[in-house]
Amino acid sequence: MSKLTDVPKRILIGRALRSDRLGETLLPKRIALPVFASDPLSSVAYAPGEVLLVLSIAGASAYAFSPWIAVAVVILMFTVVASYRQNVHAYPSGGGDYEVANTNLGPKAGVGVASALLVDYVLTVAVSISSGVENLGSAIPFIVEHKVASAIVIIVLLTLMNLRGVKESGRFFAIPTYVFVTGVFAMIAWGAFRGLVMGDNMRAPTADLEIQAEQQGLAGIALFFLLLRAFSSGCAALTGVEAISNGVPAFRKPKSRNAATTLALMGGLAVTMFCGIIGLALATDVKMAEHPAHDLLRDGKPVGEGYTQEPVISQVAAAVFGDGSFMFVLLAAATALVLFLAANTAYNGFPLLGSILAQDRYLPRQLHTRGDRLAFSNGIVLLAGAAALLVYAYGADSTRLIQLYIVGVFVSFTISQTGMVRHWNRHLRTETDPAARRRMIRSRAINTFGAFFTGLVLVVVLITKFGHGAWVSLVGMAFFFVLMTAIRKHYDRVSQELAAPEGPSDDSLRPSRVHSIVLVSKIHRPTLRAVAYAKLMRSDKLEALSINVDPAETKALKEEWERRGINVPLKILDSPYREITRPAVEYVKSLRRESPRDVVSVIIPEYVVGHWYEHLLHNQSALRLKGRLLFTPGVMVTSVPYQLRSSELAKQRAKKHQEWNAPGAVRRGPVDKTQQGAGTAKEPSGAE
Amino acid sequence: MSKLTDVPKRILIGRALRSDRLGETLLPKRIALPVFASDPLSSVAYAPGEVLLVLSIAGASAYAFSPWIAVAVVILMFTVVASYRQNVHAYPSGGGDYEVANTNLGPKAGVGVASALLVDYVLTVAVSISSGVENLGSAIPFIVEHKVASAIVIIVLLTLMNLRGVKESGRFFAIPTYVFVTGVFAMIAWGAFRGLVMGDNMRAPTADLEIQAEQQGLAGIALFFLLLRAFSSGCAALTGVEAISNGVPAFRKPKSRNAATTLALMGGLAVTMFCGIIGLALATDVKMAEHPAHDLLRDGKPVGEGYTQEPVISQVAAAVFGDGSFMFVLLAAATALVLFLAANTAYNGFPLLGSILAQDRYLPRQLHTRGDRLAFSNGIVLLAGAAALLVYAYGADSTRLIQLYIVGVFVSFTISQTGMVRHWNRHLRTETDPAARRRMIRSRAINTFGAFFTGLVLVVVLITKFGHGAWVSLVGMAFFFVLMTAIRKHYDRVSQELAAPEGPSDDSLRPSRVHSIVLVSKIHRPTLRAVAYAKLMRSDKLEALSINVDPAETKALKEEWERRGINVPLKILDSPYREITRPAVEYVKSLRRESPRDVVSVIIPEYVVGHWYEHLLHNQSALRLKGRLLFTPGVMVTSVPYQLRSSELAKQRAKKHQEWNAPGAVRRGPVDKTQQGAGTAKEPSGAE
Repeated sequence: MSKLTDVPKRILIGRALRSDRLGETLLPKRIALPVFASDPLSSVAYAPGEVLLVLSIAGASAYAFSPWIAVAVVILMFTVVASYRQNVHAYPSGGGDYEVANTNLGPKAGVGVASALLVDYVLTVAVSISSGVENLGSAIPFIVEHKVASAIVIIVLLTLMNLRGVKESGRFFAIPTYVFVTGVFAMIAWGAFRGLVMGDNMRAPTADLEIQAEQQGLAGIALFFLLLRAFSSGCAALTGVEAISNGVPAFRKPKSRNAATTLALMGGLAVTMFCGIIGLALATDVKMAEHPAHDLLRDGKPVGEGYTQEPVISQVAAAVFGDGSFMFVLLAAATALVLFLAANTAYNGFPLLGSILAQDRYLPRQLHTRGDRLAFSNGIVLLAGAAALLVYAYGADSTRLIQLYIVGVFVSFTISQTGMVRHWNRHLRTETDPAARRRMIRSRAINTFGAFFTGLVLVVVLITKFGHGAWVSLVGMAFFFVLMTAIRKHYDRVSQELAAPEGPSDDSLRPSRVHSIVLVSKIHRPTLRAVAYAKLMRSDKLEALSINVDPAETKALKEEWERRGINVPLKILDSPYREITRPAVEYVKSLRRESPRDVVSVIIPEYVVGHWYEHLLHNQSALRLKGRLLFTPGVMVTSVPYQLRSSELAKQRAKKHQEWNAPGAVRRGPVDKTQQGAGTAKEPSGAE
Repeated sequence: MSKLTDVPKRILIGRALRSDRLGETLLPKRIALPVFASDPLSSVAYAPGEVLLVLSIAGASAYAFSPWIAVAVVILMFTVVASYRQNVHAYPSGGGDYEVANTNLGPKAGVGVASALLVDYVLTVAVSISSGVENLGSAIPFIVEHKVASAIVIIVLLTLMNLRGVKESGRFFAIPTYVFVTGVFAMIAWGAFRGLVMGDNMRAPTADLEIQAEQQGLAGIALFFLLLRAFSSGCAALTGVEAISNGVPAFRKPKSRNAATTLALMGGLAVTMFCGIIGLALATDVKMAEHPAHDLLRDGKPVGEGYTQEPVISQVAAAVFGDGSFMFVLLAAATALVLFLAANTAYNGFPLLGSILAQDRYLPRQLHTRGDRLAFSNGIVLLAGAAALLVYAYGADSTRLIQLYIVGVFVSFTISQTGMVRHWNRHLRTETDPAARRRMIRSRAINTFGAFFTGLVLVVVLITKFGHGAWVSLVGMAFFFVLMTAIRKHYDRVSQELAAPEGPSDDSLRPSRVHSIVLVSKIHRPTLRAVAYAKLMRSDKLEALSINVDPAETKALKEEWERRGINVPLKILDSPYREITRPAVEYVKSLRRESPRDVVSVIIPEYVVGHWYEHLLHNQSALRLKGRLLFTPGVMVTSVPYQLRSSELAKQRAKKHQEWNAPGAVRRGPVDKTQQGAGTAKEPSGAE
């Protein structure tokens, strides 16, 4: 606000950039893939490790189950991708899971999905950044030694970047994402070549460790339960898949088809990388444990608290490329960067979803206005604060945070797919063209399987992870659900209260005359301007009103009023206790009592100043009086501003703010008038 | 604000009390004495101890100098009391030292005195509470073991009490003060009786300790310097004397004379108690040291860090009445209570001084309005925060805090007395009546001696205490001085910029026509009311304006507008980026460009809601638009409020706040219109 705070703020948040008006920024597939897929692709950096980690509970021999779990994850991934390809065709408007649920299953389901997604965004930030820090730490030990601090520093940097309104740029996303994908594929190829063709014996840094099984000789139900848990953890690879379905409007035309193709591409890349990393991990004898300090043994003794468990991707890279080699460091850096970009995705998705929810009056409606800096800023700070809290509470341990993560994802998957089944049922009722019907029936089958499978996974996740942290997510969802329901209820109640009656308006809205009062404390330019404006308005009665808080001053005011020949009667009210507000409000009320059908127009000269501290020094009694008058029926309150020279500053600041770039703008795509007009968009009711 | 925060707030701060309108609360002398004198009287609880403490640096033998130092303090006290008796006669308006300095020595001296007094108030809280905790601790060891925490708890309690607006009641002050004074006199009398008549050998708890002199065999300049330092410390007894001169308006008539009598009474009581305690301390062999852990020896060995040095008054009480006896506990409790009341004095004096400074535009002018709860609350929280910080930083050690204390007091004493000399000089120039001249010459002589003596003490204090902490006070004073000067400069600049030109007003203030615009987002009651009111105003042109952020909605709005037959033209502005503010402001500007002499009146329907969270949900775009329009010249912005049912709550809250009791109200006395009109009171300029 002030010059004082402006300089550091400008350094941190930056001068607002001129928006290039979104219009020409539609994304080609090769750019859309990294923009939307950095989140799901980056999850292969931690998901394979999580599978091994859970299996290790039954000892190293259980690692043999990991290919089967990988197969299950691959099937699930194909199911989800196939299902969402139906979504993007059926709902090209970018509403994503929320819109699907809302339209087909009703508002409760919609709010449920939205709550799950909001929690998910928070966790995307927390998990991705924690995992990114772990990956970066495999190359730079300092970072992993100060894990929580590093993670929070990165959250702060991302927050500042997004508050600053840095527009997501395709290239910014493309380079690290493609380096990451290429790097992982090179690692898989080179690893396969060395292992299968050259017969090298590649050894991961942890190859010589032994795992002490926490639960020896698991079998039957217990083993099955453990495998389910490992599968749940592997499902972390699925997070972020729905991002594309939220971003359809940002694609080049044909939007839906391009989005569907990108989705398939993303799915293919993800499963290949996931399986490749698991395969290499088995080949290089990676050892990971849930509690490495106790469960990993070196020469028969636990490695102890000082041991840092490296992420599976970095262990494999060390085995294939050599620890500290150029490719190892490059891959570690790319992995970390992609994970940070995945976190940034949440910074963009959160306001985007917020805007859609605001449109449906589940959130304050200023979130709907594009570029409402204040609203977006609050959202971003909320997101960052919640993520930082989680990172702090869980010691930036991605393994522990992942326990919370997958619930939200699968809640929205399941509800959304169920909604899609309803969608096709509805359309099938009216569709008569056999070819179209066939397509619909096929789509319905895919979505039905999707709903069933993701629902099953959700149950598995809930059962296996509830005590490990999933309950925290559920609490978060319940919080958002209750909050949004309450906000919507409030807007509905107000809207009902405000509804204009049909037919001739009732009498209370039909005032007969206006009695205008100009508030005067002394004679200066603002007062003279206010009096001049008031005269122009030709109200039925016009008088100036001054509150006598100091007889000497009031006397001087009266004399000057006469001397200047201001032809408006000056009324003086006594105020023995030096109050301004009370006598003025009581006078207005007395006028209303005398003639209830009159409207009282109170005209207040106001200074406009440029600095926040000047606000503290001025207009306080004017503001208070205005605040009180607003509660008095039959009153209109007019500010006649007088711009002081310093106000020029504030004006320029306000302009700058207006040219700010809202996060999520690229994903949202440009405003398409025809589509917008035809869509289900509802402007929240209320005075603008 | 909200129900949610209201409940705990009401428990802590309480329901605002109905003010009994101050009018009938003039104080008789027997009540005024405890109200105003709890501060100076309470200082005898620590001042004698400080003298002994400093002397101990040269060993126990130096205690022999203490009677001489007591004599010096007594002379100083008589001088100051005599001087201030002149003040209360000459300046009965309650402006105190600030008014005297401001009137006679100019605004810089006035601001200097005010800065010193503000720092002093902070220190009064810090020192009194620390000392009170030490005294209470002599009866309840738990308190002294958690000294800092106890002191801060008491600061918090006093702060809540004052935020709550508990009116100072005479009785509340009178009982502990009179118990304290009676108790000390009883102690002196009983001690004298036991010692002189009965020949008892009373022994203080520390009588058997030895003092290891930090500086052995001091003589000459060094000894003199030490004696000066001891004297400086003894001057702590003088703090608070000026309180009565600030409170003259609160006395019964004849105000000045009653105030002068009370002052004399207070001085007499204070010196008697001071000397009595020093005498008893010598008679009972009290041993106090600056660093008791090292310098006090028991059987030749230092007592060590665990030793708690009891205040002198409690040691003497233990010797005279017996440790733990009823009188001992009663006196300890009364002492602590009087010290806390002394701290409370600052809570009342701070806003009182702030109000006077605000009147002269050195502080934000809302401080001048009686019962501006927000302004007072900020002042109280500032005072409490600064005091708590000092208490924390100095470990609630009254001895260390006292080093900071006396500077401010003697700065204001000296400046004020110098001002009084000028006052008499000025009056002597015009006075011809020989009797009056004689009186004036006598008064001038008293004030001259006062100025000289207090100035000398100030120099002594600065020299002996600068390094011990007095510099902190000087930094604080400089801070207030710079702040207040800047605020005054700002008000002056604004006032100059606003000054209405004499003669016929210039053209820019003489608009010709009004173009009214009612902002419409949808048709509901607030809109209809705003349109009806706008029609009443009979402006030259009236139109309704809607921003098209959603074509479908806009179309619906247009149709309903037609259907309802609202006979005001509806203008639609396109807004491809869903902005509200920018298109509206640009439209207004374009109107102004077309006809620069027109005034644009923007009428905004607004909801009035009752809870702070409802504010978050409504009117955001209206508020933002209003904010931006105020920067546009030639615009008037009218709010037409529509009161939602929930607004009733907020209205009641606002009423409650209005009936709040401002701290310092009793001291300030009622508003006396004749006096106020005749005084130098200047209402700060600016719109109310």
